[in-house]
Amino acid sequence: MTEKVRVAIVGGSGYTGGELLRILAVHDKVEITMVTSREYTGKPITLVHPHLRGFLSMNFTNFELNKVGDKADVIFLALPHGVSLHYVPKLLEMGLKVVDLSADYRLKDPNLYKEWYGYEHPYPDLLKKAVYGLPELHREELKNTSLIASPGCNATATILALSPIVKHGITRELRFVSDVKVGSSEGGAKPHEGSHHPERENAIRPYEADGHRHSAEAEQELSILAGKPVKVSIVPHAVSNIRGALASSHAWIDDENIDELKIWKLIASFYTGNKFIRIIRGGIHPYPDPKYVIGSNFADIGFALEKRVGRLTVFAAIDNLMKGASGQAVQAFNIMMGFPEDSGLRIPPLRPA
Amino acid sequence: MTEKVRVAIVGGSGYTGGELLRILAVHDKVEITMVTSREYTGKPITLVHPHLRGFLSMNFTNFELNKVGDKADVIFLALPHGVSLHYVPKLLEMGLKVVDLSADYRLKDPNLYKEWYGYEHPYPDLLKKAVYGLPELHREELKNTSLIASPGCNATATILALSPIVKHGITRELRFVSDVKVGSSEGGAKPHEGSHHPERENAIRPYEADGHRHSAEAEQELSILAGKPVKVSIVPHAVSNIRGALASSHAWIDDENIDELKIWKLIASFYTGNKFIRIIRGGIHPYPDPKYVIGSNFADIGFALEKRVGRLTVFAAIDNLMKGASGQAVQAFNIMMGFPEDSGLRIPPLRPA
Amino acid sequence: MTEKVRVAIVGGSGYTGGELLRILAVHDKVEITMVTSREYTGKPITLVHPHLRGFLSMNFTNFELNKVGDKADVIFLALPHGVSLHYVPKLLEMGLKVVDLSADYRLKDPNLYKEWYGYEHPYPDLLKKAVYGLPELHREELKNTSLIASPGCNATATILALSPIVKHGITRELRFVSDVKVGSSEGGAKPHEGSHHPERENAIRPYEADGHRHSAEAEQELSILAGKPVKVSIVPHAVSNIRGALASSHAWIDDENIDELKIWKLIASFYTGNKFIRIIRGGIHPYPDPKYVIGSNFADIGFALEKRVGRLTVFAAIDNLMKGASGQAVQAFNIMMGFPEDSGLRIPPLRPA
Amino acid sequence: MTEKVRVAIVGGSGYTGGELLRILAVHDKVEITMVTSREYTGKPITLVHPHLRGFLSMNFTNFELNKVGDKADVIFLALPHGVSLHYVPKLLEMGLKVVDLSADYRLKDPNLYKEWYGYEHPYPDLLKKAVYGLPELHREELKNTSLIASPGCNATATILALSPIVKHGITRELRFVSDVKVGSSEGGAKPHEGSHHPERENAIRPYEADGHRHSAEAEQELSILAGKPVKVSIVPHAVSNIRGALASSHAWIDDENIDELKIWKLIASFYTGNKFIRIIRGGIHPYPDPKYVIGSNFADIGFALEKRVGRLTVFAAIDNLMKGASGQAVQAFNIMMGFPEDSGLRIPPLRPA
Repeated sequence: MTEKVRVAIVGGSGYTGGELLRILAVHDKVEITMVTSREYTGKPITLVHPHLRGFLSMNFTNFELNKVGDKADVIFLALPHGVSLHYVPKLLEMGLKVVDLSADYRLKDPNLYKEWYGYEHPYPDLLKKAVYGLPELHREELKNTSLIASPGCNATATILALSPIVKHGITRELRFVSDVKVGSSEGGAKPHEGSHHPERENAIRPYEADGHRHSAEAEQELSILAGKPVKVSIVPHAVSNIRGALASSHAWIDDENIDELKIWKLIASFYTGNKFIRIIRGGIHPYPDPKYVIGSNFADIGFALEKRVGRLTVFAAIDNLMKGASGQAVQAFNIMMGFPEDSGLRIPPLRPA
Repeated sequence: MTEKVRVAIVGGSGYTGGELLRILAVHDKVEITMVTSREYTGKPITLVHPHLRGFLSMNFTNFELNKVGDKADVIFLALPHGVSLHYVPKLLEMGLKVVDLSADYRLKDPNLYKEWYGYEHPYPDLLKKAVYGLPELHREELKNTSLIASPGCNATATILALSPIVKHGITRELRFVSDVKVGSSEGGAKPHEGSHHPERENAIRPYEADGHRHSAEAEQELSILAGKPVKVSIVPHAVSNIRGALASSHAWIDDENIDELKIWKLIASFYTGNKFIRIIRGGIHPYPDPKYVIGSNFADIGFALEKRVGRLTVFAAIDNLMKGASGQAVQAFNIMMGFPEDSGLRIPPLRPA
Repeated sequence: MTEKVRVAIVGGSGYTGGELLRILAVHDKVEITMVTSREYTGKPITLVHPHLRGFLSMNFTNFELNKVGDKADVIFLALPHGVSLHYVPKLLEMGLKVVDLSADYRLKDPNLYKEWYGYEHPYPDLLKKAVYGLPELHREELKNTSLIASPGCNATATILALSPIVKHGITRELRFVSDVKVGSSEGGAKPHEGSHHPERENAIRPYEADGHRHSAEAEQELSILAGKPVKVSIVPHAVSNIRGALASSHAWIDDENIDELKIWKLIASFYTGNKFIRIIRGGIHPYPDPKYVIGSNFADIGFALEKRVGRLTVFAAIDNLMKGASGQAVQAFNIMMGFPEDSGLRIPPLRPA
Repeated sequence: MTEKVRVAIVGGSGYTGGELLRILAVHDKVEITMVTSREYTGKPITLVHPHLRGFLSMNFTNFELNKVGDKADVIFLALPHGVSLHYVPKLLEMGLKVVDLSADYRLKDPNLYKEWYGYEHPYPDLLKKAVYGLPELHREELKNTSLIASPGCNATATILALSPIVKHGITRELRFVSDVKVGSSEGGAKPHEGSHHPERENAIRPYEADGHRHSAEAEQELSILAGKPVKVSIVPHAVSNIRGALASSHAWIDDENIDELKIWKLIASFYTGNKFIRIIRGGIHPYPDPKYVIGSNFADIGFALEKRVGRLTVFAAIDNLMKGASGQAVQAFNIMMGFPEDSGLRIPPLRPA
């Protein structure tokens, strides 16, 4: 048996951290050597993640930059936006590989950080080196990188829905509304007014509806595919689910010759060979529903065409903590390490759940 | 004290029937004289509607067309589509007033029945006489009618969202996607595969996504307002709520001079004087959310403009069983009868719920 | 028309405050003259209670003890435990009537405050004057009091379940387990770790399982009824609902002669004439379920007897914010003021919800 | 690599069938060779179980008793109660091993079938041979059986909660109330009135409260442990969850010398060496909650002692489809086959979910 890769998780007390732990604790090529948390240093991991009792007996440690090199080969950063920023160059210098789940290295154009995140990005060169961790679009680059910028969940769903369409340029214009419905775990593990159960349950609550940050990365990726500027307006809505995100990406198609079969072929061929993409069409459940990917790394893609008015909607359903965050991060990590892409991710969705 | 109006509810065992009962049982100008149900004839109403114990001690009766004239002045028909169709002309002939909650008399153009509902409408003249029961658009006509065709819930939300916009013609084109999220009560009181709790809870499930029937009535009403053809593509999604519907109606605006203030004024002025419309802007809850209208007849209207790409979304939040069905039916009934429009409807929403 | 009673609500930003506002805003004998909130002073009430838009246009004010006498005849105190304590004697001295929703004046024996709440009660005389605001047990005393100590929700459900049983002494011993299931609104409007939606939804979480404070008031009331000491162990469980509490109060009955009919008669006769108690037996919904009292002031009472082993369970279902808090407070207030007991409370439950 | 065991699942379209498929599709010692369904014969398994797309490409077949011997070594029967009854002896005669998830072979005393299930059991000899498939109580017997009678979910939770207590005889009497809260998946995959989403969601609904069938098997197992008759009254309540069951098993302890530490030791030592039992005590989550076992085969056991009144509650939290059904069936199957007990079951719970 080959030696296992030593993995450290920085920021392990949140939901994406917990989800990395759930996956990596039973990943046969990984040894978790360190899990850090400022708030819970010295406390058992299972104090915060009670579901992992029986899987992990470690304690959280403090994150000490100069010691992590002895302990780990790969670092997963599951930190709030802006916190990973200065760790990344130092970790890379120490010869470590980095998977960053924050937005800090997702955008290629440094100006976009000013526009969308309100700060000047101090490492524009690293932005070029980072690979946007969506394997369906960047598999080859992931094989040769040391820095993965793992995508945002609403962006993942939107990009996966629109990529085949944008690639083939079949819509009236390259401008889209992606109406996204997401569960409460997307907001992270810290309680706040909006996450208070009596307020959050039964909500159908639009938020950041005048401009959602994930639009920037979605536009970046789709514009590359199209070879010209694409505009995407992501309109997220908080719904009652804990997990799950559905992007309903709407477009107008005025070409009379486009029919359902053509769109199906175009989507199916675009994703050929991608294990975590399932194309949904017909049957009892004719459209994607996040309900049927819960706990797994799948993205289910489907569509509806209302020819009468020329409206096309492509749906992408993901588990926001898996394909929308930690699952996708492990998928990209597997590729970077030369492991089978689905190592540790052969997890069937949970149903009913 | 003036005499009360005698009201019969035909089809009283379903959810819209139950909601009519909840309202009318404490409506000070109404006496409920008959509630019919084929399935539960002879059984206490509270067997089916256990929440109404203490309010109604009647039994369900069978519906006998020739006897209802002696018992009631106004008939509410809470029946499946197609069942009201032949009752209506007979009830009108008997001198009764009718509030029909089905789709059978909503569309003015008989051809649309063939296209959307698959049958030839046998009473095209009555279609002309029927008033589409959306008080915000047809208040004056409602005062002088004997036949109210009460709107569908997804149509109500969509029409209320888009009316001010369409009226002023500020969008790039008169073609809209109305992405609607709805609770499970919309599907009625009969269990089916899709309503089974383990399948329905946690769903974010698109349905009738290639053409939803309510588009027909929405297009009819919006085209009247615009004075030219309007196209609306309603894309409904079943979400976990029991009650509530949110229409997120998306449009492109390429006019650089349009800003948030203009849109707000335009919406606010359109709805001036309408008691059941609340315009939402700013504050802790800056957008409409059906959560805050539950149990009430309100429609909360708000919007978001993403100027960067020219995307406008108008949101309308309703309780699908109230403003989306029975509440609106009583509101229109009040107008028809000359009662204060909010008689029996001064019900604050329930929160948290 | 007679003049309305002027009411002030102190602590109006929480859930019990909001629920008082929902009821009193449409109560025909009440004028709300002041609503206080330390945190939201000067802000519109509807900022915090968005559902009440259209019903209340007032702002929150600060609570100034010496001014409240000019503004109000009756004060509802919807404050955390321990905060009402010192206000009450001063408000009474000013000639005001007080309805206190906290636990501060519920217990007759001052020693119990030390045992259960950890403080020495400074006004033992007032404890004697206060009337425990459960109308089904203290209706006559409520007519002649100026100080109502409104019961806790888990206590209300437990007392209503066990009163008829305890009164007739039919159980093996006067010791009971009351297994209570409650919704998240019981914890109030302030977010905390345990109320965070991803943690709270889908929980079936026992809490305070080694001794719940409401046991003290339940034992007090039941001991009075029994004429001897009664022991009640309340074991609360947080479940997914927002509203609702079900007490399943378990007892052993070894008397072979007791059957279902006897128990039914005993419960039904105990509650004769109580408008807000509904006895549930048989039918499609043979046991109480909080689902069918949501939004209303009803307590539904039913039972199950497993003769095989001699186990009796009495169930009481309430809406924890209504009969378990604000609804019951208004009911007791109505009695104190000589109004019809159901003034402002003729609200049918919401269903489905 | 050794050859895999060939497994057939009879009745594969329901929830326990689906859960067996989810586990066995990635179980490294199992090959699924046949999945039967009367209703869906010839249809893809993923039509009914959309979550398994990508894992199983087989179709459902009809169940033909005389052919199954060629196809499989072990048969899982996931059929309604009474349907397995006559299959079992024939399958055993054919030399197959059988895991029956129904109640048909759980009870040792044939008279109990008449009492609780209403039929005369035709194979009393087989009842003796069958092993009740709770590994924590019958591990050794499971190693040498060909017929496993897999326990019911409410019984599993109740037995696991009470076993250590009953074994040590520390309670006042051997009579218990087990107040169980369960999710909707327990009712199976067929829609019915009570499972209709608007009725089922937000329910806290007692059912079979005057005698629940699982009491029979719980009493059987606990009586064996105690060496004398034990009485258990299971009182189930349907709550909003899809998955999860919590048994709160209540008892009186009048022995003053019993304290928390003693009870903890007694429970912990009883379960020593059992991988799927986790003892819960202290921390942020001091009591078991089914929320933290979802999707896994764990049973979390904890307790609360209210010394003041002598009340002990032992809590057991399980996923009703896993440790309460299919997970436990696979655990027992592993033991019967000589596989590691956790083969295919090293699945961490999903959180948050």
